This record gives sequence, C-alpha cells and structure tokens, in this order.
Amino acid sequence: MYDVNLIRKDFPVLEKVIYLDNGATTQTPKPAVDAMLDFYYNYTANYGRGAHHLSIAATNAYEDARDSVASFLNAPSEKMILTKNTTDSINMVANGFGFESGDHIITSVVEHHSNIVPWLRQKEKGVSVSVVDIDSEGMIDPKNIEAEITEQTKLVAVSHISNVFGSVQDIKTIIQIAHKSNVPVLIDGAQSAGHTPVDLKELDCDYFAAAGHKGLLGPQGTGVLYLKNPETIKPTSLGGGTTSDADRTCFVTKEPPESFEAGTPNLPGVIGLGASVEYLKKIGVANVEKHEVALAKEAAKRLSEIDGVSIYGPKERAGLVAFNVKDLEPHTVAMRLDKYDNICVRSGFHCAMPSQKFLGIKGSSRASFALYNTPDEVDALIEGVKRIAKES
Amino acid sequence: MYDVNLIRKDFPVLEKVIYLDNGATTQTPKPAVDAMLDFYYNYTANYGRGAHHLSIAATNAYEDARDSVASFLNAPSEKMILTKNTTDSINMVANGFGFESGDHIITSVVEHHSNIVPWLRQKEKGVSVSVVDIDSEGMIDPKNIEAEITEQTKLVAVSHISNVFGSVQDIKTIIQIAHKSNVPVLIDGAQSAGHTPVDLKELDCDYFAAAGHKGLLGPQGTGVLYLKNPETIKPTSLGGGTTSDADRTCFVTKEPPESFEAGTPNLPGVIGLGASVEYLKKIGVANVEKHEVALAKEAAKRLSEIDGVSIYGPKERAGLVAFNVKDLEPHTVAMRLDKYDNICVRSGFHCAMPSQKFLGIKGSSRASFALYNTPDEVDALIEGVKRIAKES
Repeated sequence: MYDVNLIRKDFPVLEKVIYLDNGATTQTPKPAVDAMLDFYYNYTANYGRGAHHLSIAATNAYEDARDSVASFLNAPSEKMILTKNTTDSINMVANGFGFESGDHIITSVVEHHSNIVPWLRQKEKGVSVSVVDIDSEGMIDPKNIEAEITEQTKLVAVSHISNVFGSVQDIKTIIQIAHKSNVPVLIDGAQSAGHTPVDLKELDCDYFAAAGHKGLLGPQGTGVLYLKNPETIKPTSLGGGTTSDADRTCFVTKEPPESFEAGTPNLPGVIGLGASVEYLKKIGVANVEKHEVALAKEAAKRLSEIDGVSIYGPKERAGLVAFNVKDLEPHTVAMRLDKYDNICVRSGFHCAMPSQKFLGIKGSSRASFALYNTPDEVDALIEGVKRIAKES
Repeated sequence: MYDVNLIRKDFPVLEKVIYLDNGATTQTPKPAVDAMLDFYYNYTANYGRGAHHLSIAATNAYEDARDSVASFLNAPSEKMILTKNTTDSINMVANGFGFESGDHIITSVVEHHSNIVPWLRQKEKGVSVSVVDIDSEGMIDPKNIEAEITEQTKLVAVSHISNVFGSVQDIKTIIQIAHKSNVPVLIDGAQSAGHTPVDLKELDCDYFAAAGHKGLLGPQGTGVLYLKNPETIKPTSLGGGTTSDADRTCFVTKEPPESFEAGTPNLPGVIGLGASVEYLKKIGVANVEKHEVALAKEAAKRLSEIDGVSIYGPKERAGLVAFNVKDLEPHTVAMRLDKYDNICVRSGFHCAMPSQKFLGIKGSSRASFALYNTPDEVDALIEGVKRIAKES
C-alpha cells in the first residue's frame, strides 16, 4: 500500500517546509544520500576496472547505477549515457548529430528552452527549424508535426510532459508519424522519467533525455541520455576515459557508453542516482504517478474555483499546475506563499518563454508535486492562494 | 604547524587503506561531505535567485562556492566557470574557440589525453597541430614551443604538472613566449590546482582548466574553467540557465558565467567543492605542496635505490612518482601492492599514452601523494616494492 507518511520519513526537509517545486528538482531520499556517504567514507576512488580495490568498488557501483537506470527505463545499459542534466543530454545530440545546411528540424512551441534553443542555434549553420503550435492547454497535435515533415527533416524533438502546462504529449503517435518518414525522434523526458512509466523499448524513440534530479529522485548534477543507435551521434567531448589509444598524430575512441563520458564521472552523484532509482522501483512508478496526478488535479480544480485565479494546462494533466492570481506578478505570488505559508513554488517563465509568449501570458506560479506530497499540503496551497487573491 | 595526524581524522577511509592514487582523485574531507549533507537534508532546491527561500539558499551556497574557488586561484568570480571535470573544461575551449581550416595549435607530447585529443580532433577541420617533444624527464623546453609558433598559431595548450612524470613545466616562460606573438595559452592544471600555489592574475594565462576532485579535494563531478576573456569562447551547451529570452525564432544568451553553465548545476558537488577549498585554504597550499613534494622525493629516491626498479620524472618533481619493477606489467605491480600491502596505486598509461610511447615505456605504476599521506606510508610502499622486486 502507498504510505506517504512512511515515504516522507526519507526526506527530512519535509518536516520544515511545504515543498511544491518538484518540477525544478525533487528532494533526495535518505537511501540515496546514504549511498553517497558510503562512497565518500569507504571507497572514494576514480573509475577504472583494472586498478586497486577501491577503484574497482567505485567502478562497479557506478556501473550498477547505470544498470539500475537502464533497466528502470527498459533500455540496454550500453545505450544509456550518464550526463550532467537533461540540457547536457540534449546538447550532446544537437552538437553530435552533424546537422548540415539545408537540414530541417521540427520542434514545438511548448518546449523548455533546453529543447528549443539547441535547435534554433543550428540555424547558424543554415538548418531550418519548424516550431509547431500548441493548443491553449499546451497540447501538440501530432498532425501538426506530420504536416511539417519534408525530405530534409532530420529530427523531431518534443517533450513528453510540459513543465508549464503539465500536458502529456501523445509521443507514441508522434514517434510513429516521424518513423513513417524515417525521421528520428528525440524525447525530452525531463518531466516524465520517474513520474510516469517510460518503456524505451516499447516507445521506440531514437533519443531520450532526462534529468537525474527530478522524477528519478537523484542528486543534482546527473542526467541520462538514451541513444537507440549510438553511432548516429559523435561524442562532443573527448579525452580521458574516451580514448583507447593515442599518439602524437591520432587517437582511437572507445565504444559507447564510455566514448560519451569524458573525464572523471560524477561518481557520487551517479551512485546516489542508482540508489534513488532502486528506491523508486520499490514504490513503483505507476503508484507514484497515481499519487502525484491526484494531487495536481485536486489542486487545479480547487485553484480554478478561486475568484481571480487562472490555471493552465489540460484537465488530464501530469502532476503539476501553473496558475496566476489576478494581475499579480508570478514572483509576488510565490514570495507571499513562501513568506506567509512556508510553501515553495516556482514562478516566472519556467525556462519556457516561447509557449507563454504564444499564449500571451507573462509567466506563472507553478506547484509541482512529488511522491511525498500530501492532500494537507494541497489544502495549505489553496488557503494561501485564496488569501492572496482576497488581499489583491 | 602542519599536523598530518589531525588532517587524517577528516578522511576516515585512511584508517583502512594506504591511498596513494591521489593523481586520479583525492579523498573528500569531512567538512565538504558535511556541507553536502547539509544541502541534502536542509535546503535541496534548484538554482534561482528570485524564487523561494530554499532556492535562494541553494543559489547563494553555489555562488559562495564559486567565490571560494575564484579567490583561491586569484581570479574574478564571473570568469570562473564551474564544469564537470578538467576534460569538460578543455573541451569547452576546444569546441567553443571556433577553430578554422588553416589554424594551428601547439601542444606537447607530455599531455594527458584530455589535453591532446581535443586538439588532434581539430585536424578534421583542417587545423594543424604541433606536438612538441619533451626530454627524458618529461620536461618541455619552452624554446620548442617558441620554434613552432607561426602566424597561423591560434593556441598553445600545455599542462602545468605532468600526471606521469610529476614534471613541473615552466609555464610562466611559455605564457610569456606565446603572448609575445599574441597567441593565447591554455594551462591544464589538473595536477597543479591545490597541489601548488596558482595565481591566475600573476600567471596571466588565457584559459586554465582544473579538476575539482584532485588537488582541490572536492567531489568527483566538479571542475573549473577560468576564462580571462570569456567572449573568446562560445558556449557549447545552451538551454535552461543560459537563456534570458527566447521565442520561436531566436534566443538571447545571458552573460558569463551563466552562459557557460547550461541546465541544473551540480549543486551538491559544487557546494562540497567550496567547502573543500575553504578547508585547503586553512591548511595553506604552500604547506600542502611542501608536504607532498617531500614524500614524493623520498619515495623516488628510495625506489630508485631498489635493484631492478626504474623511476621516471625529474629530481625536482611534484608530489608523484611513476615507476616500473623489472619487466613486470605495471598492473601486476599495482595488484600485488593492493593485495599484499593494502596500498592503492594507479597503473597503466595514466591516460597519457603519447609521452610513454615517445619514451619507449609501456606504462608504469604511479604513487601520487596528498596532504594526508605520511612517511610511514612511503615506508610501506618501499617495503612492498622491494618484496615484489625480490620475488621477480
């Protein structure tokens, strides 16, 4: 049975604050922190299978963590690259894909800056970029993607779940449509991995980027990049760890995943991520999703009933809700919730300006839920927003 | 007074093992681990100055850490980019410099793969790369650099301290020579930052790359990149955190350092790094250097006296010594020291194959020292190597 009070014991900070900024980062569970402490105090060493016992222990723990993440997302370990964050993962594809003048990329207006700016940047090379529209609830119509595909289209890049609207895109259909024209698809899973079941084998996307520190509950400084066909991307960073042979004129690069992980890896972070994913597996991501979505729907419903409050996103939303109170600046709302109600929500454009410009809104406050949030916390949010609305 | 026994109390693993693999990574001191624990349990949040109090606390702690590192290396904070590791730092320069066909880069044969492969890769673009020779002790003669400079030379990239030979390059002279011809210089400080005083203002190099997890005693997954003139490098990774404005056709990038730190930063790692640098400041890097160099010189001297043992590097060495025992494989030596003496040393090519091919050696074992190592540990190393030499 899903016992939120038991879960909350693994996140000590929740005794002190109502934390509803999980779309930015989740808290890290105690078992993951303990795994990092174990590394720091018992086997800190650099990666390297052929070295001394501390190094072997560190290497094995790092690779076990990769296996945990890969199996959680149902992908082979050797195709699961460990990165710094989602942005790093997406830029590795953008910079390593080898786009050329005349190529065409399709993305959407709902994307986080990290899944639109790396593509817009390709315009410097003569690449054209189509940014398809969304509806007023932040949904992409897959037909809009289909309509933009040409013979020059080299990639479709869309998010699974919007970090502003909580809209869950029909990525299965989008992937099928793109694949009909042999166009590979990148999914930005920053807001989906760990929040909803993701089966990469079934999904059949070509690239999947996600954060370690959001739904996967890992520490900040970790991210993942799944490459269905690693050979389609050139590593952008080379040196220690990626090189199997070198002399003064040339070098030989190792096989994936090592070829994509240059330099000393974030060993403690990845080991923490592995532990957090194992923690999540035990609770079950479907259970987590049910819990988070119920809280978000309840919050959305009750927020929308408050006089002067606007909410964004579809009725069938993921575990977050963005809102505005009358004509108050989103930061003002967030600061008042923080100061008077001890509630942490994010405010502003949420690194997704194009969608909000498209819809004509000037940012929003956002409550985003995680496995450890409670109905009481939704109550507190509602009471806080009611008061702010009344005062304004 | 330098009290190594007091220092050792901050590194619990040292009670269990003789750790002489500090060239790969140092151990992390307790105050740094405590700083990360504080973050995990009291103020985990994402970066963002204008948000709720947890986020403000996290942002301030991250920026305080940047200030600590910047002041430690005597550089302005806004020119100190926080990266994943040295390799990441160097690749940011290699990929962001904008090398073009006909350009020329000078590096040396003593470099770590991370300071040679990123330059050799530029050959794909039609860039030529000169790899200057070293002497038998791993020293670069600055005149060899001078002789290679042409009007096409766009960069000189050399290491401060070799991770194989412990040779300390005359980087001041190299920088002066290059600057006479208006050629910028990148210093690979992976083995120098935290092991020897580095004053970036005085040094006047254009780029300085270092690891957080070596001499600076920070956690793995952290690195630094100093950019004297940030405008000379284009950020290679863009998205969240780097973008001040965006719509569906274009975007505006923030000022440095934010423009170079895309996505959620490694907040706990950087906060740990800040604490470790403060720890190091208290002990004093000049004291640390004296301690480490004394141990390495003693080890080198006594190793060289063992029948059948070869050592590498100059007499005036930094705190490490690489060696071979008769014709034994370096890995065999390291494994025996690990198994029978509980001593951790690294073995192999140390990600620096060109130099070892140049000198005709097939790798080595390497003992590398940190502030917490002791003369007793040198004794144990010598006894271990003596036994191995005798048995072989």
